[in-house]
Amino acid sequence: MIHFNSDYLEGAHPAIMEKLLQTNMLQTVGYGCDEFCQQAAEKIKAACQAPEADVHFLVGGTQTNTTVIASILRPYQGVLTAVSGHINCHETGAIESTGHKVIALPTDNGKITARQVEEYYLWQQNDESVEHIVQPGMVYISYPTEGGTLYTKAELTEMFNTCRKYGLPLFIDGARLGYGLTSDSADLTMPEIARLCDVFYIGGTKIGALFGEAVVIMNPALKKDFRYMIKQRGGMLAKGRLLGIQFDVLFTDDLYLKIARHANEMAYQIRDIFVSAGYPMLFDSDTNQQYPIMSDAELEEIGKNFGYEYWTRVDETHSGVRFCASWATTQEQVDALRKAVLALKK
Amino acid sequence: MIHFNSDYLEGAHPAIMEKLLQTNMLQTVGYGCDEFCQQAAEKIKAACQAPEADVHFLVGGTQTNTTVIASILRPYQGVLTAVSGHINCHETGAIESTGHKVIALPTDNGKITARQVEEYYLWQQNDESVEHIVQPGMVYISYPTEGGTLYTKAELTEMFNTCRKYGLPLFIDGARLGYGLTSDSADLTMPEIARLCDVFYIGGTKIGALFGEAVVIMNPALKKDFRYMIKQRGGMLAKGRLLGIQFDVLFTDDLYLKIARHANEMAYQIRDIFVSAGYPMLFDSDTNQQYPIMSDAELEEIGKNFGYEYWTRVDETHSGVRFCASWATTQEQVDALRKAVLALKK
Amino acid sequence: MIHFNSDYLEGAHPAIMEKLLQTNMLQTVGYGCDEFCQQAAEKIKAACQAPEADVHFLVGGTQTNTTVIASILRPYQGVLTAVSGHINCHETGAIESTGHKVIALPTDNGKITARQVEEYYLWQQNDESVEHIVQPGMVYISYPTEGGTLYTKAELTEMFNTCRKYGLPLFIDGARLGYGLTSDSADLTMPEIARLCDVFYIGGTKIGALFGEAVVIMNPALKKDFRYMIKQRGGMLAKGRLLGIQFDVLFTDDLYLKIARHANEMAYQIRDIFVSAGYPMLFDSDTNQQYPIMSDAELEEIGKNFGYEYWTRVDETHSGVRFCASWATTQEQVDALRKAVLALKK
Amino acid sequence: MIHFNSDYLEGAHPAIMEKLLQTNMLQTVGYGCDEFCQQAAEKIKAACQAPEADVHFLVGGTQTNTTVIASILRPYQGVLTAVSGHINCHETGAIESTGHKVIALPTDNGKITARQVEEYYLWQQNDESVEHIVQPGMVYISYPTEGGTLYTKAELTEMFNTCRKYGLPLFIDGARLGYGLTSDSADLTMPEIARLCDVFYIGGTKIGALFGEAVVIMNPALKKDFRYMIKQRGGMLAKGRLLGIQFDVLFTDDLYLKIARHANEMAYQIRDIFVSAGYPMLFDSDTNQQYPIMSDAELEEIGKNFGYEYWTRVDETHSGVRFCASWATTQEQVDALRKAVLALKK
Repeated sequence: MIHFNSDYLEGAHPAIMEKLLQTNMLQTVGYGCDEFCQQAAEKIKAACQAPEADVHFLVGGTQTNTTVIASILRPYQGVLTAVSGHINCHETGAIESTGHKVIALPTDNGKITARQVEEYYLWQQNDESVEHIVQPGMVYISYPTEGGTLYTKAELTEMFNTCRKYGLPLFIDGARLGYGLTSDSADLTMPEIARLCDVFYIGGTKIGALFGEAVVIMNPALKKDFRYMIKQRGGMLAKGRLLGIQFDVLFTDDLYLKIARHANEMAYQIRDIFVSAGYPMLFDSDTNQQYPIMSDAELEEIGKNFGYEYWTRVDETHSGVRFCASWATTQEQVDALRKAVLALKK
Repeated sequence: MIHFNSDYLEGAHPAIMEKLLQTNMLQTVGYGCDEFCQQAAEKIKAACQAPEADVHFLVGGTQTNTTVIASILRPYQGVLTAVSGHINCHETGAIESTGHKVIALPTDNGKITARQVEEYYLWQQNDESVEHIVQPGMVYISYPTEGGTLYTKAELTEMFNTCRKYGLPLFIDGARLGYGLTSDSADLTMPEIARLCDVFYIGGTKIGALFGEAVVIMNPALKKDFRYMIKQRGGMLAKGRLLGIQFDVLFTDDLYLKIARHANEMAYQIRDIFVSAGYPMLFDSDTNQQYPIMSDAELEEIGKNFGYEYWTRVDETHSGVRFCASWATTQEQVDALRKAVLALKK
Repeated sequence: MIHFNSDYLEGAHPAIMEKLLQTNMLQTVGYGCDEFCQQAAEKIKAACQAPEADVHFLVGGTQTNTTVIASILRPYQGVLTAVSGHINCHETGAIESTGHKVIALPTDNGKITARQVEEYYLWQQNDESVEHIVQPGMVYISYPTEGGTLYTKAELTEMFNTCRKYGLPLFIDGARLGYGLTSDSADLTMPEIARLCDVFYIGGTKIGALFGEAVVIMNPALKKDFRYMIKQRGGMLAKGRLLGIQFDVLFTDDLYLKIARHANEMAYQIRDIFVSAGYPMLFDSDTNQQYPIMSDAELEEIGKNFGYEYWTRVDETHSGVRFCASWATTQEQVDALRKAVLALKK
Repeated sequence: MIHFNSDYLEGAHPAIMEKLLQTNMLQTVGYGCDEFCQQAAEKIKAACQAPEADVHFLVGGTQTNTTVIASILRPYQGVLTAVSGHINCHETGAIESTGHKVIALPTDNGKITARQVEEYYLWQQNDESVEHIVQPGMVYISYPTEGGTLYTKAELTEMFNTCRKYGLPLFIDGARLGYGLTSDSADLTMPEIARLCDVFYIGGTKIGALFGEAVVIMNPALKKDFRYMIKQRGGMLAKGRLLGIQFDVLFTDDLYLKIARHANEMAYQIRDIFVSAGYPMLFDSDTNQQYPIMSDAELEEIGKNFGYEYWTRVDETHSGVRFCASWATTQEQVDALRKAVLALKK
């Protein structure tokens, strides 16, 4: 059985495991104040060309989104997001649990536009009952989006300009940032991402780490007391060095981007397998997640030897499903899938 | 200038003012434990034919919705509502401020169906990532809805049965309950409302009181410690008797329903004025709120002598607006409006 | 039966009732934007000699405390208060319900000192695990305190200077402000109170109004978007004019201070009754609340004709209780109490 | 430099690292539904002799306390704890951030008594203003306490009986559970702990794991939907198997208790070093944390080569400090400390 269900099926990249092992008996101070965290932060700032940034390490994505958003909003403010945004759909109301409304904007492809943000903001601000309506206090987008699509540099620039215009901090969820940046269709680099938002995070859990997300705070106004927020929201790991060590490895010799690129290349092969075999795709994704539409009978057949994630029903006999590649996906696994898909068509 | 903007433009019905004046120097215990509150509660239970109910008095609608909903939901649960529900649109995120997601279901007419509730509930419960999605924990509907439409007895019965089937408490926002119950097209009575939900409230602010909403808890499982909730959420009036006195008057000799019926009759005349003059209506409302669509030029003209509430833009030159009648609306006011509308058409 | 249990036993001062009656059928806009609210705000600003202040009207004390405090604190901050502070003892955890710790400092007399605030602040800031400890974010004091004691001008000045030094907004709960300002031992005026804090409120519920508290925001940094907070926390009365009208009356011809002074004078007579009769007092209060210590047998006897509030057990056979005077207390009521107390000693 | 500052200075026990490495490339499902988590849960249930328990794995202690407590309390309830309880002192108000008051009871030794709980509960329930006071909704204790003291079986039994009597779930914070159970003065076993509470957790972070806490829910009424709580509060690790693997190793061949016992034995030697040298101890601790009182000059001297944690000032020239042993402490490290302490006395 070979699983393509997600990009967090295995443990960590071997280089990370090796470094964890090698540093295991060192004594360090706790809570992220150790030298590994400092070193990793420096490397990340260098990769972002942002020496002035603050870098913090948290454990998981929902935790990171909640901590960042709760640190920014005033009690009567909400966060603008695509209706398909992770914070709106798959975090069990974590944002709301901190007291804030998630304001969901419609989308076809997982992205929202600067225009949508502007229109919503102006609509609320110009309503007669302005104080009866949740005030938009920031914007959340994902890069890549939950469906694998990507904002272009032009789109992100326009979004950031609009956010600046209306005083709305822009937060980019980079749970799969590496897969986005190394996509064939990406026109953004990590330093550009950093410059085009107020705060973002670099996902480790889904790109080679055991766990861990690196928050990069670009806007000085958002830096104050962020460690209090991390502690209160349960994200301050006692053995914080585990996060520092992992990100240190990931940001040495470009490992982070290299393994992300590998995953994309595996994913493109997977896409080609399905497209060549005549299957339509649910989304037009240039990242590590691919969403073929197959008949339920075919899914049952392929499911005997391959794991995938059920995504959505398309019609009475067809479904869209997700095949993920990751840093750990091998050519052998992809070849086995190719063979199986071709066999379906016989 | 005559205002039809809302149903809370004046103070209280004269009978209430008289009773407040007459009891002003009496000494009573505070916080709703006085004899007036007890007496009012008894009258309300009688009007609901629900001797087993618990009745509590709160000050305002947002406060009441928040207190009731926060008292019912577990931390990971949300409340199902129409997207146009008051809790979703006009309470500054008060529900979210208590930690809960407002789960908005689409609607054309302000109502949601039992079918929608069932489908959403089953979709969430059957999702693979069930614990990653907010669990629907209760249902909120308004009677009448924010647009003035009404659930039929059949619809409400089906809704309540579905809620029971899935263990979802049903809460009815009755900010304008009286206007609903005395509508020409209503087929529900107050005892029926009471029997077909777990908890509801009888709005006083918009029907003759200075302020005040009477929460009627039908489901015994929801009764425990509700006074703690009221106190914590700032709804426990020190001079609680003010609420008792007002509802005592409103529920003596059917005053509540009588003045609500009067408002509806005034509203029907208002509707006739606009319909006869050829204006389309935004909603098909049989309650005290009427929503004609007029040209912006006409609105400007009529606005010189009459107040209305701007509701929504319809097209580039037309808008839907709200004209409200209330217990305080007089035949003279309506006649003046008639004259003015007819004059527009000349 | 004559009740001295509290200062909210009756309705409102007759002048308020008269104005409410007289304005009852006027049509006004809702939610505190009417002319009565504006006029009352102007009069309050004049009385505070603070033309730059923002004035908002809320319904009750717990609501006001919660709204003000939640509007000021960041998520990881708490509010410093005396352990006997109302927010710590008698608000059902309303402050905590908004996510904030109430940090209780010890006190013998209901007051806390600038020194205590400074020491706590420095202790927290200098702790090695600073981010693991709730950060003090503001200071809450009551004037008069819950036990009827008063800060002197020197004490309040020192407190405010300390708060400024450490960036801690100072909030004064003035639920009984008038009783404090008109006390024989007060050396502070309303303009001085206003100048020596960042925000305070003028209590109406306990001094002549049916209900209502006027929040006066002195610090410009705390003014932004406060109406959103009021709405979200359920304090925005639809018929907001009711608050404006009441405070308009209270701040016309010094009515607020006059009736507060009357209450104090009645209270001093009550104190004299007990002290002359040889009863010790639980607190040394110069305001409208007096706390004699009596034997349980005497309390039972006096309780046959007079209401008081049980406060605390002193020893196995004695208790401290509260007798309150208010704007509504009459000389006849006090004389009746005098006769009864004297009778106990025969 | 040898550090005794805490019990989370190193990585994980070598057996854990080995198993993590060995399983690194296995593909498993996420979010704690994998076979390792199941197997670890079975072993823990066996160790607790509690086949009916629910076992969940979370990442850290603050997160675990917050998740458990927020899952139990109603909005108007608080949690009773010793004033020195971790939730009251060192979690940045995490409990309050979920809306609940931490009700701190006085203590000299880190423990609270059943009598204290009963008295507080009855005091609140019998107060006239019962609904104005936060209702105690559960009890939190730590075993061992933050100062290293231990509840006896008799004390815990009495506490649990009192909690049962008043319907208060009892939650035991076992961040250092192993150190408590293997203490010379412990008279409780893990199955007894399990039987004498409603829910507890077995700390991994401080006893050999990289991170991880195992929550054991004994009371069936507390089991429902706990995974939603974990997810919402950011504690559901995507690669949940990391937690399963670690606890699997810790609960194989009694490793957890063996390494805890080793730490205690090292700590006893440390205690003997200080006591023999004539230093008084701040607490009378039979666990892995020892708190000698030393002069500031001596602390500076010893601090040149040994790390300790500053705990509290004792007088102008002396302080109480913490020396911790852990599974990783070696005889060589302790011998070096002995030599250094003896040298101080020359």
